[in-house]
Amino acid sequence: MQAKQIQVDDARLSAITCGPLPASRKVYVPGTVHPFLRVPMREISQTVTQQQGASGSRKIENPPVTVYDTSGPYTDPAIRIDVREGIAALRRPWIDARGDAEELPGISSHYGRLRLADPHLDSLRFAHLRRPLRAKPGRNVTQMHYARQGIVTPEMEFIAIRENQRLEELFSAQHPGNSWGASTPKVISPEFVRAEVARGRAVITANINHPELEPMIIGRNFLVKINANIGNSAVTSTIEEEVEKMVWATRWGADTVMDLSTGRNIHETREWILRNSPVPIGTVPIYQALEKVKGKAEELTWEIFRDTLIEQAEQGVDYFTIHAGVRLRYVPLTAKRVTGIVSRGGSILAKWCLAHHAENFLYAHFEEICDIMKAYDVTFSLGDGLRPGSIADANDEAQFAELETLGELTKIAWKHDVQTMIEGPGHIPMHLIQVNMTKQLETCGEAPFYTLGPLTTDIAPGYDHITSAIGAAMIGWYGTAMLCYVTPKEHLGLPNRDDVKEGVIAYKIAAHAADLAKGHPGAQARDNALSTARFEFRWEDQFNLGLDPERARAFHDATLPADAAKVAHFCSMCGPHFCSMKITEDVREYAKELGLTPEQALEEGLESKSDEFRRAGGNIYQRI
Amino acid sequence: MQAKQIQVDDARLSAITCGPLPASRKVYVPGTVHPFLRVPMREISQTVTQQQGASGSRKIENPPVTVYDTSGPYTDPAIRIDVREGIAALRRPWIDARGDAEELPGISSHYGRLRLADPHLDSLRFAHLRRPLRAKPGRNVTQMHYARQGIVTPEMEFIAIRENQRLEELFSAQHPGNSWGASTPKVISPEFVRAEVARGRAVITANINHPELEPMIIGRNFLVKINANIGNSAVTSTIEEEVEKMVWATRWGADTVMDLSTGRNIHETREWILRNSPVPIGTVPIYQALEKVKGKAEELTWEIFRDTLIEQAEQGVDYFTIHAGVRLRYVPLTAKRVTGIVSRGGSILAKWCLAHHAENFLYAHFEEICDIMKAYDVTFSLGDGLRPGSIADANDEAQFAELETLGELTKIAWKHDVQTMIEGPGHIPMHLIQVNMTKQLETCGEAPFYTLGPLTTDIAPGYDHITSAIGAAMIGWYGTAMLCYVTPKEHLGLPNRDDVKEGVIAYKIAAHAADLAKGHPGAQARDNALSTARFEFRWEDQFNLGLDPERARAFHDATLPADAAKVAHFCSMCGPHFCSMKITEDVREYAKELGLTPEQALEEGLESKSDEFRRAGGNIYQRI
Repeated sequence: MQAKQIQVDDARLSAITCGPLPASRKVYVPGTVHPFLRVPMREISQTVTQQQGASGSRKIENPPVTVYDTSGPYTDPAIRIDVREGIAALRRPWIDARGDAEELPGISSHYGRLRLADPHLDSLRFAHLRRPLRAKPGRNVTQMHYARQGIVTPEMEFIAIRENQRLEELFSAQHPGNSWGASTPKVISPEFVRAEVARGRAVITANINHPELEPMIIGRNFLVKINANIGNSAVTSTIEEEVEKMVWATRWGADTVMDLSTGRNIHETREWILRNSPVPIGTVPIYQALEKVKGKAEELTWEIFRDTLIEQAEQGVDYFTIHAGVRLRYVPLTAKRVTGIVSRGGSILAKWCLAHHAENFLYAHFEEICDIMKAYDVTFSLGDGLRPGSIADANDEAQFAELETLGELTKIAWKHDVQTMIEGPGHIPMHLIQVNMTKQLETCGEAPFYTLGPLTTDIAPGYDHITSAIGAAMIGWYGTAMLCYVTPKEHLGLPNRDDVKEGVIAYKIAAHAADLAKGHPGAQARDNALSTARFEFRWEDQFNLGLDPERARAFHDATLPADAAKVAHFCSMCGPHFCSMKITEDVREYAKELGLTPEQALEEGLESKSDEFRRAGGNIYQRI
Repeated sequence: MQAKQIQVDDARLSAITCGPLPASRKVYVPGTVHPFLRVPMREISQTVTQQQGASGSRKIENPPVTVYDTSGPYTDPAIRIDVREGIAALRRPWIDARGDAEELPGISSHYGRLRLADPHLDSLRFAHLRRPLRAKPGRNVTQMHYARQGIVTPEMEFIAIRENQRLEELFSAQHPGNSWGASTPKVISPEFVRAEVARGRAVITANINHPELEPMIIGRNFLVKINANIGNSAVTSTIEEEVEKMVWATRWGADTVMDLSTGRNIHETREWILRNSPVPIGTVPIYQALEKVKGKAEELTWEIFRDTLIEQAEQGVDYFTIHAGVRLRYVPLTAKRVTGIVSRGGSILAKWCLAHHAENFLYAHFEEICDIMKAYDVTFSLGDGLRPGSIADANDEAQFAELETLGELTKIAWKHDVQTMIEGPGHIPMHLIQVNMTKQLETCGEAPFYTLGPLTTDIAPGYDHITSAIGAAMIGWYGTAMLCYVTPKEHLGLPNRDDVKEGVIAYKIAAHAADLAKGHPGAQARDNALSTARFEFRWEDQFNLGLDPERARAFHDATLPADAAKVAHFCSMCGPHFCSMKITEDVREYAKELGLTPEQALEEGLESKSDEFRRAGGNIYQRI
């Protein structure tokens, strides 16, 4: 391999997407228990409502809408971004203050040391490597461990503030005519966060070696989260592309990112991603372990895998997918399937089990893995290696057998105070989705469920972001805590930048639809703000309050491009002289002119007034 | 208006999309009760499976997969298409044979006659106008009327054959190794179709003046159908575009098309669409009536509306959206809403009711409308003029009040043997969807429900095909018979050709996901065929069996463009040396080499064999 091939492309690194979304500014909310906290949110400003009435025109201010923000410092113009330096290590002082971790003299992993010593990689390597942190001997640095001791960490308060999205302020803002819902939503407290983590019902994926991340929580009593997968393969893509994909995915709302690289330079790529990532990063360590044995699954050993876990934990990976539930005895159950084993990790381990006729070494060494996890606070994402890969294989014996084992392993992890979530399917028709959720909650003691889709039909390659958004929204409603996105390229190829965005937006839709259905406190505020803007023909606000302001604007402009059209009290669908929303304004105006509540109007009769209305023109256009 | 402006563009008409989809041919299945029937279906051929075993390579044929086909003669290369001539009037002999309709000397509608007499419209007019058919005095030509008399019409047998999709043949095809499901599905009989129509639980939208259509059924005991809206507006689009949009929408799977034109030349555009449409066409006659009074809702009269109904019925419109449930007393209930009245038809009638302080004239004249409907067999689509336009307004008093009235009107329509379906929302969060379906079934005597979406959140303008596909799939599962599509341009602009396709595919996904969840006979066959192809790396088959072969192929080629890659036993996601599906082949091969069923393999132990497997290389790559 030539050094030339593996240089980092400076021009591309400089082209990382930065800057705020339209009409948005970054705001920071301070902590109370921990006053040093600055919890980032995105505030979307709104334009003024011009109300035309009998007594003339008046302006009504519309309050800004604050939304959950996953985009990190990239959308704050006050912060200089240089991906060669990485982003600020905001959690480092919090970690240091706990006094239970120590800086190691160097990398513990054998493989990591080899990579560091290889001069061919110098041009590719992130320049500012930190010395890794690890729990002091006998200490446990997991958020679950703190939670169980009754400690409310800065991470927990950060999360409580973040989940609340300043809803109290929004709800207290007086805005006559807008219906924000019946009452102020309940506010999530730091203590509630702690209790949920202690109970195992939520996880805070936050490795002590990833101090750059902005803490977030995954649990079914919080906002539904989404994950975006990135990663190179042997066939295509580069470090610069992967860093940009991570930034790009978080810009549109990815709550976590999994680096699923299987190609060259996995170690170095991961370092770049972690040092620049404001969101937790997950990996599937078996992919890299397999690369170390040149793709020969049967040559995998516990020692190689263990070294890989330590290598990645010291880089700062926040959660590991571990396919410890693919037990030898379950493998033959998949032979009857239409699509066998479709999980990469699952198939690697199945192959290993068959070749050695031995129990899965991840299962066999599970407690040793727990010891590594708690030394860095890496969260388990127990992989569903036997998930169904087609509608035909949904909810079969192999799938549920593995789930039982994942439940057993969850209890072991919890014994070590190691945070744990459970991965779920896959391909499931709608009527079989709920049983998955119910079984998972029962079997795994309510540990957070983290599902891929599920896809609700197999017949739409090229549109699996949609086949799966349907299943994702439903399982999110039923209680899944995090939804792993699916892009339009699923089953066909590697997602590019556009595919990543399509996948993220489809999954933000699914997650938000689930939040609404679950009755999550205040989730509907954004819908109400957008719908009010729509109804009042505040086009700019309608664009800006949406998940993708750029596309909404472009679609509008495709039919009515002039700037004037964006303040027009009509739209291209019905034209200027025929608009249902305009007519409804009449209804409302009319009811108001009667000086009656709608109910009174009904009771007292409208006849006399209707003549007057007709005489006055009975028509909206006079008011413009 | 200059004649020049309104000429039909010959070049554009010739550019109508024709020709079969990839690997597909049109097949026609004959009738039994009515042997002259030729029911069109699309047969997708599959490639051969190359199976490598210990005993060498062998080829396994894969049977063709027959799918429901909405595309009409446009995808049959044996049929010459000339949109200036229109497509064949296949139902005309069936209608004539019934002897209960008569050809009129000319158009009954006053407005229709004016248009016909206008020489400025000559260049725009469809050249081969037929004289309209109408029921003979005292006769009723609705399919419901025939059904209630115990008559199985050719339309009913056509539908039974069409719904079955040749599944018996598929299920009897022996294909070892493929799991097509446990048993042959139950077959839909012509008598079952008749009984459902008689009961009012299904409708066959088939105007006697639209003999070109290929009969189809809308009812919850049949495949879930989808509708695509097209139509020009005052702002944009032309006749040629609308005809092409109709052909284009049916190519991708639209079961019916609604022409929602509100702009110029509505009458002439509709004629072109009908004469070329193999699917039922629906309209909202109030749109055109409003145009006749220059957009002034208060100037609408029953006479103008009645003339419009007759005008459109004699052209061949198959179903009318009639907003007869927007009663005067309900209008003030919408004043409290976040988004008031968002249905165009609903708002027109609300305005009329307020201006006149009189009951909705559609409600007042409902029985007279029934008389028109049964003279041509136009189906009611009772419009939900008060449907919610935002999450905030879902399932409110106004919406459900109107639904009660629609139930009352359904009973009146059925008294006249007039086929009836009920339109539904709109914007509904997931947890409130099922109650809509339940209420509709109870209130409207199980008349088919025809819903727009519902959209499950308001926050994604530009992606409402996805926000609504989620709701559509769910309500389809719960029992909705037809889903009205939503395109990505919803709320923002008029859909173009690409948007129509996006909307149709999203809704085919929703409808099919619902069919799977409902356990519709044989719905899973296509999923199984596609998943089997995917698992066997039959890339061409995977593309061709999907809803959009072109996009699937393009996405695949974006990462692995070479033709060789389409027979490769790997894909771009994991690369050639690392593939879960390849590894599963090992598992299966291994189980087979053991000469054991998977269960036996488990019981008898694998140890000795595993050594052998390892010695033999334990690796798939040797087999290529």
